[in-house]
Amino acid sequence: MGAPAAGPPGGSSDRVTVAFDALGAEAGVDAVSEGVAAAAADGIAVRVFGPESVFSGLGSGLVEVIDTTAVIGNDEEPVRAVRSRPEASIVRAAADVAAGRSDALASPGSTGATMTAALFALKRIRSVQRPALAVEIPAPGRERPLLMLDVGANADARASHLVQFAYLGSAFAAAVLGVEEPRVGLLSVGSEAKKGSALVVEAHETLAGASGIDFAGNVEGRDLLDPDLEVVVTDGFTGNVVLKTIEGTARAVGDAVGRAARSNPLAATGGLLLRPALGGLRHEMDPDATGGAILLGLRGVAVVGHGSSGPLGIANQIRLAARSVGERAVERTDELIESSGVGRSAIRAAKESEA
Amino acid sequence: MGAPAAGPPGGSSDRVTVAFDALGAEAGVDAVSEGVAAAAADGIAVRVFGPESVFSGLGSGLVEVIDTTAVIGNDEEPVRAVRSRPEASIVRAAADVAAGRSDALASPGSTGATMTAALFALKRIRSVQRPALAVEIPAPGRERPLLMLDVGANADARASHLVQFAYLGSAFAAAVLGVEEPRVGLLSVGSEAKKGSALVVEAHETLAGASGIDFAGNVEGRDLLDPDLEVVVTDGFTGNVVLKTIEGTARAVGDAVGRAARSNPLAATGGLLLRPALGGLRHEMDPDATGGAILLGLRGVAVVGHGSSGPLGIANQIRLAARSVGERAVERTDELIESSGVGRSAIRAAKESEA
Repeated sequence: MGAPAAGPPGGSSDRVTVAFDALGAEAGVDAVSEGVAAAAADGIAVRVFGPESVFSGLGSGLVEVIDTTAVIGNDEEPVRAVRSRPEASIVRAAADVAAGRSDALASPGSTGATMTAALFALKRIRSVQRPALAVEIPAPGRERPLLMLDVGANADARASHLVQFAYLGSAFAAAVLGVEEPRVGLLSVGSEAKKGSALVVEAHETLAGASGIDFAGNVEGRDLLDPDLEVVVTDGFTGNVVLKTIEGTARAVGDAVGRAARSNPLAATGGLLLRPALGGLRHEMDPDATGGAILLGLRGVAVVGHGSSGPLGIANQIRLAARSVGERAVERTDELIESSGVGRSAIRAAKESEA
Repeated sequence: MGAPAAGPPGGSSDRVTVAFDALGAEAGVDAVSEGVAAAAADGIAVRVFGPESVFSGLGSGLVEVIDTTAVIGNDEEPVRAVRSRPEASIVRAAADVAAGRSDALASPGSTGATMTAALFALKRIRSVQRPALAVEIPAPGRERPLLMLDVGANADARASHLVQFAYLGSAFAAAVLGVEEPRVGLLSVGSEAKKGSALVVEAHETLAGASGIDFAGNVEGRDLLDPDLEVVVTDGFTGNVVLKTIEGTARAVGDAVGRAARSNPLAATGGLLLRPALGGLRHEMDPDATGGAILLGLRGVAVVGHGSSGPLGIANQIRLAARSVGERAVERTDELIESSGVGRSAIRAAKESEA
């Protein structure tokens, strides 16, 4: 392609079409069918990449099944697999977006394969050095979303990457999550500007003088629930570890509460009475509530769903992809980065003037 | 000094003496007095560095108060403060260990000042490149301890540092936490050897061929509750962020359960019935249960307590310091590192043979 054409495809309609890699889902056919149907019921057109024999019941109305039987598994090396297997569902779905037949990509399959296929097919926004994987972190009791990035697109980062991540996250939170002037924090080990790794100290210095975003300074692991914060920036290694630590800790505490409730009859009665009120918490901590992560910095929209998504998760990752197209997330990201002078050309110019 | 004499001080007795920086405690005088008295009741001699006017009631039996009124605060730059203020309580307490009057240091004060004072006064073990701060992480439902290091002594690390941390943690878990042949994991973003930052991939390569420790390979954030793991190694930036993320998530989930229990009368009744059974969980997640972190790799014992320690936390940080002396943690660490060939001299020799 390069980039998908700006504005809705098909010319006259503002209908958004999402290419969905159904072969990546761990959930069964029924869960996928239910999730896709729910998204279609919202008026989203879905092009489903999966076996026609299996998904034949889906292909009507806004849903079209593109017969695909090859899948890239979690255990395959993503770059090699994506390069060598054009027939695989995630590669075909990404190519569908690149060709302009779909407006956005969503896949609950291998994260590595989805990111790689999306990057190869959709390409980076010109001003962006590295794409970053962003996810709404499950934080109980928060009224506003909290977006963390990078949670795993790049295991190593430079300070200029972290600076750009702040803009990618800010633009996405404003465009898609509905947050006016998002507050952006930099994950570190103390609030002072000089606290943290050399990487973080350098990024802080640039962000402290940055325009176009609302930089809240350093934030710590325990501040992730700070209500005055909507975006947290970190490198992909730390972000991935933190995200999994949150999941693991929440599960461990939940399990421990469950064990306590099974420890004696009185506690069991207590657990039963408390259970309905805990429904909200379970919903808040449910990864399916957001549907998945989104790869920011590309010239198109790519949503990386949870492999374990149920029907709600599948519907929500398709909805997130469609909403990102509808809100012009890509275009607004590019505009913010260019107008704030932190794009690649500005970075190159700064380097040349130093040399 | 340099290092404290091997074996118990005072020659004939096996009584351990701990220098305790009472001015660092945020808790009131009563909490400090109660905690120190509890440790002394276990047969530990405590030299308390704090104002005699305040702690006069403590000075009897195994407890001696050394009149000290100057304190280094959390907001002071540690290296400058420790260098310029020999009269400060943490500097005097550390000097007391270096002079052989005490066997170990414990302080609930500024982490930075405690680490700096300990490093300056006690020095590194010769074979160790960098000391690391280790802490038992609060993990509900675990039967065996889980030690994580580094949680903040060094914001940046090299692969050879991470390799040494594996040995520091393994030796400490075996000597002081009573774990036979501890399993040591390397924190990363996937179990495969090639997953992770360049730093982690390099450290993994060395650890995979290392002798003298039981390397379990990479572990992820969500594996921190894996029952077959007793030591987790990471750089001080990631470790600090992860530790605070665990604390923050556990508190947020606990708060959400509390809110649920206040949401309606039935739930409130349930919460009351469940409450006693949750006592064990509260204890497991209580930082006071372990007393604090320990700075490993020094020629003496230094325990960095929680600033917010109550009486139990204060007693436990003094007990941890005393146990580390009694179990010869320093000597056993040095022996393990030297015998495994990962000491500084081995690293230097490897570098020279490469050159």
